[in-house]
Amino acid sequence: MLSFESDYIQGAHPDILKKLVDTNMEVLTGYGFDKYCESAKAKIKALCGDNSEIFLLNGGTQTNQIVIDTMLEPYQGVICADTGHINSHEAGAIEFTGHKVLTLKNELGKINPDDLLSYVKTFYADENHDHCVFPGMVYISHPTEYGTLYTLSELEAISAICKEYSLKLYLDGARLGYGLMSKNTDVTIKDICKLCDAFYIGGTKVGALCGEAVVFTHNNAPKHFFTSIKQHGALLAKGRLLGVQFDTLFTDDLYFKISKHAIDMADLMRDAFKSKGYQLYIETVTNQIFVILNDDDYVKLKKVVSVGFWERLPDNRAVVRFASSWATTEDDVKALINVL
Amino acid sequence: MLSFESDYIQGAHPDILKKLVDTNMEVLTGYGFDKYCESAKAKIKALCGDNSEIFLLNGGTQTNQIVIDTMLEPYQGVICADTGHINSHEAGAIEFTGHKVLTLKNELGKINPDDLLSYVKTFYADENHDHCVFPGMVYISHPTEYGTLYTLSELEAISAICKEYSLKLYLDGARLGYGLMSKNTDVTIKDICKLCDAFYIGGTKVGALCGEAVVFTHNNAPKHFFTSIKQHGALLAKGRLLGVQFDTLFTDDLYFKISKHAIDMADLMRDAFKSKGYQLYIETVTNQIFVILNDDDYVKLKKVVSVGFWERLPDNRAVVRFASSWATTEDDVKALINVL
Amino acid sequence: MLSFESDYIQGAHPDILKKLVDTNMEVLTGYGFDKYCESAKAKIKALCGDNSEIFLLNGGTQTNQIVIDTMLEPYQGVICADTGHINSHEAGAIEFTGHKVLTLKNELGKINPDDLLSYVKTFYADENHDHCVFPGMVYISHPTEYGTLYTLSELEAISAICKEYSLKLYLDGARLGYGLMSKNTDVTIKDICKLCDAFYIGGTKVGALCGEAVVFTHNNAPKHFFTSIKQHGALLAKGRLLGVQFDTLFTDDLYFKISKHAIDMADLMRDAFKSKGYQLYIETVTNQIFVILNDDDYVKLKKVVSVGFWERLPDNRAVVRFASSWATTEDDVKALINVL
Amino acid sequence: MLSFESDYIQGAHPDILKKLVDTNMEVLTGYGFDKYCESAKAKIKALCGDNSEIFLLNGGTQTNQIVIDTMLEPYQGVICADTGHINSHEAGAIEFTGHKVLTLKNELGKINPDDLLSYVKTFYADENHDHCVFPGMVYISHPTEYGTLYTLSELEAISAICKEYSLKLYLDGARLGYGLMSKNTDVTIKDICKLCDAFYIGGTKVGALCGEAVVFTHNNAPKHFFTSIKQHGALLAKGRLLGVQFDTLFTDDLYFKISKHAIDMADLMRDAFKSKGYQLYIETVTNQIFVILNDDDYVKLKKVVSVGFWERLPDNRAVVRFASSWATTEDDVKALINVL
Repeated sequence: MLSFESDYIQGAHPDILKKLVDTNMEVLTGYGFDKYCESAKAKIKALCGDNSEIFLLNGGTQTNQIVIDTMLEPYQGVICADTGHINSHEAGAIEFTGHKVLTLKNELGKINPDDLLSYVKTFYADENHDHCVFPGMVYISHPTEYGTLYTLSELEAISAICKEYSLKLYLDGARLGYGLMSKNTDVTIKDICKLCDAFYIGGTKVGALCGEAVVFTHNNAPKHFFTSIKQHGALLAKGRLLGVQFDTLFTDDLYFKISKHAIDMADLMRDAFKSKGYQLYIETVTNQIFVILNDDDYVKLKKVVSVGFWERLPDNRAVVRFASSWATTEDDVKALINVL
Repeated sequence: MLSFESDYIQGAHPDILKKLVDTNMEVLTGYGFDKYCESAKAKIKALCGDNSEIFLLNGGTQTNQIVIDTMLEPYQGVICADTGHINSHEAGAIEFTGHKVLTLKNELGKINPDDLLSYVKTFYADENHDHCVFPGMVYISHPTEYGTLYTLSELEAISAICKEYSLKLYLDGARLGYGLMSKNTDVTIKDICKLCDAFYIGGTKVGALCGEAVVFTHNNAPKHFFTSIKQHGALLAKGRLLGVQFDTLFTDDLYFKISKHAIDMADLMRDAFKSKGYQLYIETVTNQIFVILNDDDYVKLKKVVSVGFWERLPDNRAVVRFASSWATTEDDVKALINVL
Repeated sequence: MLSFESDYIQGAHPDILKKLVDTNMEVLTGYGFDKYCESAKAKIKALCGDNSEIFLLNGGTQTNQIVIDTMLEPYQGVICADTGHINSHEAGAIEFTGHKVLTLKNELGKINPDDLLSYVKTFYADENHDHCVFPGMVYISHPTEYGTLYTLSELEAISAICKEYSLKLYLDGARLGYGLMSKNTDVTIKDICKLCDAFYIGGTKVGALCGEAVVFTHNNAPKHFFTSIKQHGALLAKGRLLGVQFDTLFTDDLYFKISKHAIDMADLMRDAFKSKGYQLYIETVTNQIFVILNDDDYVKLKKVVSVGFWERLPDNRAVVRFASSWATTEDDVKALINVL
Repeated sequence: MLSFESDYIQGAHPDILKKLVDTNMEVLTGYGFDKYCESAKAKIKALCGDNSEIFLLNGGTQTNQIVIDTMLEPYQGVICADTGHINSHEAGAIEFTGHKVLTLKNELGKINPDDLLSYVKTFYADENHDHCVFPGMVYISHPTEYGTLYTLSELEAISAICKEYSLKLYLDGARLGYGLMSKNTDVTIKDICKLCDAFYIGGTKVGALCGEAVVFTHNNAPKHFFTSIKQHGALLAKGRLLGVQFDTLFTDDLYFKISKHAIDMADLMRDAFKSKGYQLYIETVTNQIFVILNDDDYVKLKKVVSVGFWERLPDNRAVVRFASSWATTEDDVKALINVL
C-alpha cells in the first residue's frame, strides 16, 4: 500500500547502508572516538564554522533531554511554544531531568517574538520572581511540528531577545534538512549557527536509521558533555553506527540532496491537493502537508493510502498528514494523485 | 593490526547487516510496533517462557538505568558488587534517576550470597532503618565484569534471599551469550528466567550494532513501560533497527552459535597462555581473559596486538584483557599465539 | 504601621507559643514519635475519620512536593489550574521531582470540572497518548490563590471525574481554615475527607510558626512515607515543634476559632470597601480581598498601610491584596476603614 | 527518667523561646528578609569574615541536600567517609538529587587525607574516567558521627588536596559548637572559614528548635541560592522562626557558652566512666560518649537511664551512646554516676 504516514517508515538511505556494510569488519575503537565519527564531525564543522563542537546522539527526545538539561542551570526552565515537541510528545523527558517547560501560545507552531519578549519582561518585572522558575533557554523547532518555518527576521528577533535576557537559544532540527531545502525560506545553516547557541541536525527523519548531530555553535559545549551523555544512558559502545551514518550524509551533500528531493515531492503533492480543491489545514513549506478531509473522503482514502491522523476539527472533519521523505518516489506521488 | 581489545571493535554480524539491507525499503510502522520487533520478541519469548515480556533498548547503561528505575520504588536502592558496572562505569546513571547503589565487596566480580543475606539482615535489624535507603533490588552481572560466572547454586541462593526479603533480582546480561555458551557453566537461560525478575540479553557485545533485549520474566513489566522508555529518552522512531537485529540473532540460534564460537576462540587463547607460562589474573570461563604481563612483555606485545589495559598491580606489572567475539577467527588466534 | 500584607506577618498564636514554653523541658523522642505529635494526629483523625492517616510537615511547597511526588507514578503528571501555586510560585519544586505540571485555564483560580473532563477525554482519545505524560492527579487549592472557594457540587463533580479516570484528588489547604469558616461555603472538612485522596491543613498561614498537616483520607498513605519525607530533606529531628503546634491548634477548636475570627475581620473590611465604592478585583469569600486602586489612591494608601501588590491591570491601575489573620484586631480594621 | 539519649530530646534554650515570645506580635516580612534574619546573619558574618554569605535552613539532611546539590555540577559526586551521615542515614537524600556518594573507608569516623589523595589520583590516572562519576566535593563532618574531631593539620591536608584537584570542601557542622568548644581541638571557626568552601553551624542539636546556618566562606554562594532553596521545598514563609533563633544563639556568645557547658558535662561523664572501669568504644572528645556494656549491665542501666543504642559487637556486647547537651545539668550527671 502507498504510504505517506511519516518520514521514518523506511530504513536508511542506501548509501548509508552500503557504507555500514563496507566498513563493517574494520576494527574501530568504541564510544565515538573512531575515524568515521571524527570524519563526520569534521564535515559538519566545515559547514558550521570553526567554533562549532559536534556530538552524535541517537534520537530526538534523547537529544532534547540531554542538551536542555546540560545547558540549563538546575533552577532554570525552558520556554517553548505550547505545541513544542518537548511540551507535548516527549513523555515529560524534560521534567524528568528537573526542568520546567514554560509555554507560550504557538502561532502555526512558532513562537512569536513579541510574546517571548513580553513573557521575559513580565517575569523580571514581578518582584517575586525569585519564587519562580527562571527562564534559561528558548526552544524552537525548525521546521516546527506543523511543518512551518521561522523567517530569518523572526530568528534574529528571537536571538536578540535571548541575548538581552541571557537565554540560551536552542533549535530542534529533527527535520532540519527539509527546512533548509524549502523553496520558501531565507534561513541558512550559517544563520542558525550564528543565531543559536545549539541545535541539532536530524538524521532519523532525514535518511538515517537513527542519529542526530548536536552542534554547539560557539565553543560552548557543556563541560564534560561526554560524561553527561553516559550519565543520561545515551552513549553507544559502537559509536561507529552514528559516525558512519553522518559521515555518509555529509559526503557529497547527500543530506541536502535527499532533503531537496523530499521537498520536491511534497511540492508536487501540495500542488495536486490545491488543484483538486482540497483544503489545507496549515500552509506548510516543508515535507509535511496537513489536509482537511470530510469523513467519506477519509474513509475512502485510508483504503489505499496510509497517512498520519493528526486531529479532528470541531465540525468533525479530519486533519491528516502526508509526509514525503528521501524514499518517496515520483511514482508514489503520481499514484497518490490518481486516487485523490 | 591484530586486535583483541574488546568484543565491540567490529560492526554487526553479516547476517544482521544483510537483513537490514533486505528489509530496508519495506514500509514499517515506527516506535517498535513493526513486524520485525514483534517477531524478535516472539522468538525470545519462545526461549524464555509464556510469562515473559520483552522490550528492545539501545545500550547497556540505558537498559540498566531504565529497568532499575522503573522496577524500584523511589525510596529504594539497588545492591550490587562494588565492581558492578552500574557502580563503577556508568557515570552515575543510576543515581541520576534518584536511586542509591548499595555495594557489597565482590568476590571475583560476584556477590557472595552470605554477604547479601548479612547485609539485608543487618539492615532490617537496625531499628533506625526507616532513616536509610531500603534495598529493593539485587543487580548481578552474568558474566561479570571480570568474565566470571555464577553457579546455579549461587544463583538459587541469591534468588531465595531476594524472595524472602522482597528484593527484585535483575541480571545484567551484556555478554549473556558468552555466559550461556561457556563450557564451565550449569546455568541455562531457563534458570535465569525462573530465578530472576528481569534480565537483558546483550546484543551490542554479541554481534549487534546496538541493542539489548530486556526480559521481564513473570508478566511483571512495569506499568506503562513504553512511556517510561520515552521519558528516559530511549525510544527510537525506527524501532526496526532493533527488531531486525534481534530477529536475526534469534533465528536459527545465531545468537548462541556466535557466542559459542567466541568461547571456542577464547578457550584456544586461554590454553595457549597457560601452556606458554603466562600468569592469568583471574580464572575466567567466558570470552574475556585477563593476563598479567611484566613491562617488557607488555611493551613488545602492544606493538603487534591491540589489547585492553585493565589495571596495574602493586608490583607494577600490567593486567591486560584479551577478548574474543563472533568476529574473531582461528587465524587471528594463531597469529596471536605466534607472537606470545 | 498598619499591615494587611499577608496572613503570615506575625508569629504564632499565643496559645501555641505558651504550649511550646510549657513543654520545652520535657524529654521527648525525636522525629515525630513524641506524644504531642501523637496527640495532634489523634485529634485531626477524630475530625477526619478512622481511615485517615496524618503526617506533619514544615511548609506548603514542601508538602506539595512530597505528597505529589509520592502519590504519583514516575511517568505521571499533575493537573492544576494555571494559577495553581505549584505551577506559578514554587520555583519548579514539582518538576524538580520529575513530574510535569499539566495546566487548565483557571476560572477565578479554580478548575472548571468540564475543562477537566475534556482534558482527560482528549488525552485518552489520542492514540499516541503513550508518548505523553499521563495525568495521574488533580491538584486544587481551597481556598484558591485568589481567595475563592469550590462549591460542594464542583468538588463532587471533580471527584467523580477523578474516580472515573483513576486520578488522585489532592487539595492544597494552605488556608483551609479560612475556607471552612467562610460564611459562603457549603463544603465541610468531612466532604473534603470523603471526596479527596489527600489534602493538607495549613498551619503556617493559620496561626502556626510553621507546619502543615497532611491527611491521607482512605488509609492510603504512600508506603514508607516517613522514609520519603527524610529522602526529600523534610524530616525534623525535634518533631515536637510541629506536634505541639498542631496539638494546640486542634484543642478546643482553636484552629476554627481563629479562622473564623479572620473571616469576620475580612467581612468587615469587604463591607467597608464596598460601601466606600472601591472596586473589587474578584469577589472573594475568605480572608483575602483583592481591591483595584488607581495610582493616586495606591500611593496615598501605601504611606499608612502595608498591603500586598498583586498585579497591574492593562489600564495601569493596581490590584492590591488585603489579608486578615488570627492576629488582625477590630482596631486594625477600624483604623484601616478610617484611612480608606 | 534520666535521659542521655541524644542532644535533641528537649526543646529550645530558654533564651530562644523567650525571644520568640517577645517578638511574636511584631509585623515582619516573610521568607527570611526580616530584621532578625538580617541580624543573625550579620552576627555570624562577624565571626566568619567579610567574604562569608549566610543562609538559614531547617534541618541537617535538608542542608546537606541543598548545599551539595547546588555546589556540584550535575555529573559530579561527593566523597565522604563510609560512616558519613549523607551515606548512611539520610535515606538517599543526596542521590535523590542525582549525585553519587563516593565513599572512603573511615578512620574513627574521619577521612584519612592519604586515602583521599589516593582516590583522586587513581581516578584521574584511569584513562576511562570519563565513563565515571567525577569527584566534585569532599564532605566531612566535624564532629564526626562518632564524636571525633579533625586536627588542624588534617583539615589543612584535606583542604590542600581539594584545592589541587578542584574539589569543593564542605563541612557538616550539625554539632559544630561541641567541636569548637572541645578541650582537645586546635581547630577554630576561623580555620574552618579559611579551609572550607562551605559549612553549616548546627542549631537543632545545639539549642535551637530547628535550624542550621549555612556559611559560604568566600563569596561563593551558588547563584540564585534563594530560588534553589524554594525549589527543594525548604523555604519557610515565616523566616523569623530561624532568624530569631540564630540571632539569639549568636548574641553574647550563647551558642558557644551552651556548647561549652555540654562539653563540661560530657567530660565529667567520661571521667566517671573511666574511673569506674567502663570500656569506651571510641575515644571521643565532644558531647557524645560511646560505652561498651555487657548485657547484664545494659539491661540494668536501661531501667533507670535512657541512652542511645549504637550497635552490637561480634561478642554480643552492646555499644551505647551517652550524649550531653545545653540542657544537661550537673545533677543529671551526678545521678548518672550514682547508678553506674
